[in-house]
Order: sequence, then structure tokens, then C-alpha cells
Amino acid sequence: MRIELVNTGNELLLGDTINTNAAWIGQRIAALGLMVSRHLVVSDGAVIGEAIAEAASRSDVVLVSGGLGPTADDLTREMTAELLGLPLELDERLAQDLREFFAQRNRPMADSNLRQVMVPRGATVLPNPFGTAPGLYFPAELGRSRGFNTHVFLLPGPPRELKPMMENQVEPRLGKLIHGDRRRVVRYLKITGLGESDLVARVERDLEAIEGLGLGYCIRAGDVDLRLSGDAQCVGQAEALVRSRLEAHIVSDDNRLLEEVVVAELAALGQKVATAESCTGGLLSSRLTDIPGSSAVFGHGWVVYANEAKVGQLGVDGGRIAQHGAVSPEVALAMARGALARSGSDHALALTGIAGPGGGSHEKPVGTVFVALVSRVGPDLVLPLLLPGSRDRFKLMATQAALDMLRRRLLGLANREGTQEA
Amino acid sequence: MRIELVNTGNELLLGDTINTNAAWIGQRIAALGLMVSRHLVVSDGAVIGEAIAEAASRSDVVLVSGGLGPTADDLTREMTAELLGLPLELDERLAQDLREFFAQRNRPMADSNLRQVMVPRGATVLPNPFGTAPGLYFPAELGRSRGFNTHVFLLPGPPRELKPMMENQVEPRLGKLIHGDRRRVVRYLKITGLGESDLVARVERDLEAIEGLGLGYCIRAGDVDLRLSGDAQCVGQAEALVRSRLEAHIVSDDNRLLEEVVVAELAALGQKVATAESCTGGLLSSRLTDIPGSSAVFGHGWVVYANEAKVGQLGVDGGRIAQHGAVSPEVALAMARGALARSGSDHALALTGIAGPGGGSHEKPVGTVFVALVSRVGPDLVLPLLLPGSRDRFKLMATQAALDMLRRRLLGLANREGTQEA
Repeated sequence: MRIELVNTGNELLLGDTINTNAAWIGQRIAALGLMVSRHLVVSDGAVIGEAIAEAASRSDVVLVSGGLGPTADDLTREMTAELLGLPLELDERLAQDLREFFAQRNRPMADSNLRQVMVPRGATVLPNPFGTAPGLYFPAELGRSRGFNTHVFLLPGPPRELKPMMENQVEPRLGKLIHGDRRRVVRYLKITGLGESDLVARVERDLEAIEGLGLGYCIRAGDVDLRLSGDAQCVGQAEALVRSRLEAHIVSDDNRLLEEVVVAELAALGQKVATAESCTGGLLSSRLTDIPGSSAVFGHGWVVYANEAKVGQLGVDGGRIAQHGAVSPEVALAMARGALARSGSDHALALTGIAGPGGGSHEKPVGTVFVALVSRVGPDLVLPLLLPGSRDRFKLMATQAALDMLRRRLLGLANREGTQEA
Repeated sequence: MRIELVNTGNELLLGDTINTNAAWIGQRIAALGLMVSRHLVVSDGAVIGEAIAEAASRSDVVLVSGGLGPTADDLTREMTAELLGLPLELDERLAQDLREFFAQRNRPMADSNLRQVMVPRGATVLPNPFGTAPGLYFPAELGRSRGFNTHVFLLPGPPRELKPMMENQVEPRLGKLIHGDRRRVVRYLKITGLGESDLVARVERDLEAIEGLGLGYCIRAGDVDLRLSGDAQCVGQAEALVRSRLEAHIVSDDNRLLEEVVVAELAALGQKVATAESCTGGLLSSRLTDIPGSSAVFGHGWVVYANEAKVGQLGVDGGRIAQHGAVSPEVALAMARGALARSGSDHALALTGIAGPGGGSHEKPVGTVFVALVSRVGPDLVLPLLLPGSRDRFKLMATQAALDMLRRRLLGLANREGTQEA
């Protein structure tokens, strides 16, 4: 089965908007076991008609996004109806909904808004709870008189309208077209602390031997999302295999981020963490506080960029800094101990390192970082890491390592390889 | 002049990589006064030939990225040569460079790497200082025997290889094709503290009256980049107009971020800033420390998420918190004063607010935030803001407001409208 994606919007061609919809749709289609064959972006206006005709002549399914709005440039609905030879008819129920939408907001409704509730005869309306433009589905048989045999879906452009419509309205229909009545399962395992090649070496060969399993990787700095898809039995078998090999590295199986998992585990245990950051400059506490409800588990953080701050705010011994250097396991531990004592938290994480581009030496090159974890119960830990690359990547990877160290402690998992007991 | 963009890469269609190249190229082309007409993404392999043929048959210029690597799926070079009827010839100098590249890294060179230095006869090699795959330029006349009249550029896929090649090799050639020998100027003005509609109301009509001026907006949370392009005279006139209307809102005219400007201004003055953050959880200090060299201007930060931290770490009076609430101008100022005194810095910024989704009240709804600035010299300031929306957006906009408050003080600019003297 061949699927093409068509987007319309000058903002995409001008580069004012990065096309995140396309990547997201690509992932959703991949999770159904297929790959988008082509992805085409065209400008606003009548050229969308041509683009849909081209795509439909080559494909079984065409997904179109954008151009369903009320302005004169929004022509996706009209062009598709014309292409398939279907008259447009006003849908009275949708029109009533639209009038109410505007009335509730005390906004006048322009006549042009009624274009959004014109429905090509025979097309199925896809409700849009998050905007004024409903989507439309044209089953393949609607276009046969014009020589097409293609299922066409028209979706709104804004991600917060497109995504729920894709998940709730499009994917169930696509699933049926692709897999008939066979139930299909998708599982995402978020894996941290392993590079892609390491991950591939540990599980890929055995996963590829599982009949009918769809396998995908989505690589981010510090994380790999492993995507397993297929029938329930083969996905279950694959998940068991991955769990048996990589258990301690699996952060979540429900798309939760590492920081979400850490906040949830702390909350479940009724515990708190404090942070003491030098080289990461507050990114660790910022990631923790990105999570709603984090105030229950995080109260105190220090950004001790200067040595005087390490000494003055956290009680790190100046002599120790002079002896070992600010970037050392000793100072990382002293920072964590200071944060633990001053905050009254159950755990404290500390980071000290060299983000670069300046400040490195032969002995301690740019990218060197020490991550310390000190808890009320449990041994003090220091993890030495070398994270070369950009400053952004350094900060992200270092905070990832710190969060993962705490995650493992909270779950009672074995210490990470390479972790030193101090 | 019609320009199309073609990308190849399964990772784009599977959604494993977000296509940031396309948006970036779109912006670069817009800065030359044009809009990309179409953007097509196809999979790895031979289908790239078809895609280039289609694009070339419709366009004056085709930009292709991806598929120049050494693997069997990388066929962009071969397919383009075949399409235009040009034999491939080994470029001995490039081959020598490539052998040295591998020798320097002590890595064996596979024979397949030599495919990267095969050059279609008549094509111009575009050097790639950041990777092993050179780019190629096919002037329009090369394809005339096959019925094409299109300039074709082949570029590598990785952004760090593509971007410098686009800027240094492609844009000068495109500029000549588009504008002949007329010199063209592009100016980006980064504007903060004004919504898009506000910005449009203040300058758009008068900018549009300037003959020959290309005008574009790139909107981000908290920022608008205004793009002015055209000949030196009209861009100069437009810039003068924007500066006269919006001077205090212009952060940079050289693409520098707000935090870069703040760090540079502090460094120039030999001054330091400290931070005291509640609702933004360390994002402010993290943004400052994203900038290389920030350790010269930032040494101390506090993340006082809990009230005990505000009291214990920064000396905020508990009675004041009880009287006014933790989210109040009084507490924001007390946090800033505490940070200033404890850090010995010249300035201190403090933020306290309600990021949501929980914690709001009728009087202080979710999105309420107070930003305080206290300096050794100059009046204490508190800015009250309401920033509804997601938690991420709240944190970004609140830190943007704080950085801008400091920027204005450092530049001796008039206080922002709505700022209260405390």
C-alpha cells in the first residue's frame, strides 16, 4: 500500500514554520508498519489541486494537510471536490455548530467562514473539536468516475487540531485499510544510557528474527525510542526480549520522558530531590520543573557557576577545590552533600564539568563532567563522563545522566556500569 | 524564477528526523527575495532520479539534498549524471583529499567511498570542508541536450555540511542568477516584547510602501525576526524606519539571541548578574549559561521552588510571604535583593509566578508572574505579566521578559511600558 503526504502553506516554503507535522505523521504511519512514499509541500492557493491529483494518481492513500481555513487562499476542500467531481453542499448541522462557536466567543462570524462547512457530496466529515475547520474523508470509490482509486483525507494544518484528528479519525480507518480486521499493536520503549550502535548490537539481530515485527528507532541526544509494531503476540515477544536484555536502560513504555518518570517515582515514594549545578547552569532543575506537579518533589536548587558560589552557598571546602580542581569527583560529591544538608531533601544531584568551548586541558578535556548522587539512604555515587560535542548537547547529555542515576536509585536498579562508589 | 527543493532520505519520511534543512533553506531563499515553489521528499534509492527530472522540467533551479554518501542507497550523484547524460569521471585531486581524510583518522577507506569523488563531466565541484561528500553544481547548459534548462545543485544532507555549502557556494551563484550583478542586502532585526499584530500595526504599512523591499517575519515565542531584503538603499531606509519606531525592542541586527546580547553587554561593562528563580525553575540561568563565556558574567543562581528555600536560601521574610503570597511583587523583589546581596553581583533577576496547570486562583490566575530586577545602581523594578498557555511557553516567555529587562537596563534604555518602580 502506497501512502503520500501533501502539505500546503507558504509559511512552510518560506521556512517561517518548521514542518513538524510531516515528521509526526511519518512516525504514525511507520507505527502502522508502512513508510510514507513521498511528501510534497506546495504553496497556498489553487496549486494544491494539481498536487493532490499527482499524488492520487500514484497512491492508494493521500493525506493532505492545510488549506481548510476561511481565507481566499484556503482551497484544499474546493480543489479536491472539483478533482473528484463532487458538488459542495452546506452541512446544516456543522453550520449550526460554527455559529455557536462564534456566539460563545462573542465574535462576529464572517460569511467566508461558512466555506468551512461545505461538504463534498459523499465525503465523510471528520470532527475537529479544537478548531473551526472539520476534516474530510473521501473513500476510494468516490473518485472512480474520474479515474482515481485513492482514499483521500483532508486535515487541518495546526498541530493541535491535526494530531487528535489523525489519531482518532484517520488511523483507525488506515489500520483497517492496511491490516483489515487484524488487531495491530504499537509499543514505544524509551531507552537511555546506550548509544544506537550499542543498542543495535544487543537486540537487533534477535528482534529481526521475529516474524511480522515492525522495528524502528528514533534517536535523540541521550535517548533512543525503540518502536515495536505488529500483532499482539509478536510485539509481546519482542518486548520481553528487549526487557530481558536492557531492563535497567528502559525508562518508559508509554512515551513518558525521563524527567516525568523521575518526578512520578519521587512522588510515589513521597521523597524530594535537590540540585547543585555548575556546568549545566540550571538545566537539570529546569527539566525537573518542566513537569507539572514537580513542586511536590523539588524545592531547592543551586546554580554554583563560580567557585565562590560553591564555597559560599553549598559549603564546599575551598582547599578541596584548590587541591582537586572544581571539576573533580571530590567537588561534585561535596556539592551534592551541601545541597542535601541545606535542603532537607532525600536525594541531591550535583554536576561539575567543562562545557567548552574553552576551559579544557590535556588531563580534563572539554566535555569532562562528574555527576554525583547523594541520598539519605544508600551509598554516595559519582559518575565520570566525557561528553564531547556542542555546549547544548553537553548540557543535555549531562543532565540526562544525572536524571538516570536518580531513576535507577529510585527503582532500586543495579548501579550503572562505570559508576564509582565514593 | 522558479526554485524547487528535493530532499532524499528515509529518515525524513519515517519521521525519525525533523526536516529542519527545508525550513532553513526556505528562509535563505526568501532572503534572496524568492519563495521555494515546491518541496518534495522522496525515499533513498533510485526514485531520486524521477524526482529531480520532474522538478527540473518545471523549474529554473533545483536544490537537492541527501544521497551523496558512500552507501548503495546514495544515488543522487549517479541519477543526476544519468538524467543529464553526463559520464562520471574520477576526480584525482578529490580522491587524494579523501585518502588523506581517512589516513589522518587512522581509518581504513572502503572502495565505495571513491564513489563520492566521481564527478559528472562539466559539473562544478562544491567543496565540503565538514564531510567527505563534495557538492555539485550543474549549470543549466549542461542539461540542454536532454531538453532541460535548469540549474541543479546537489548538497549533502547533514545540516553542518549543508549550511556552509549553501551560504558560501550556492547563495552567491543563486544571487547572480536572480539579481544579476545588482548587489542585494539582507538584514535580520530580532525584536522582542512585541506581539506580531502589534509589530505589524507599528511598521508594516510604511515598510510596504518602500519600493523594492522584501519583507518577512519569523515568529517565535517571545521574539519576532523581521527580515528586510533588497538593494542597500531600500534596506537602509527600512532599517532606519524600524529603528525610529521600535528602537528599544530591537535586540540584535546580526541574528544574536537575547541571552547572547545580555552576556556580551555584561562582559563589556565588566558586570555580573545573579538569578533567583521560582516558577522558571532554572531556565533563566540555563539560558545565560548556554552562551560560551557566560562564566565571566554569571556566578550565582538559586532555584527557590519551595517557600522554605526562598526564606532559607535568600532570606525572604516568611511574614512577607504569608502576607502577600509567594507570587507577589514584594516577594519577587525580596528574592532579587537576597540574590544581589549573597552573590556580590551588580544585578539580580528574580521570577515568581504560577506556571500551571494547577495553582491558579481568581485573583492570581495560571500564567501570573512577577519579574524583578535589582541593581547596585538604578531603581528596583518589578514587571507584572500574565502569560497564559502551556508550561513550556510560560517558562520561555517569563525568562525572555527577565532577560529583556536586564538588556534595557544595561543599554540605558527607557523602562518598558508597564514596569512599576518599586
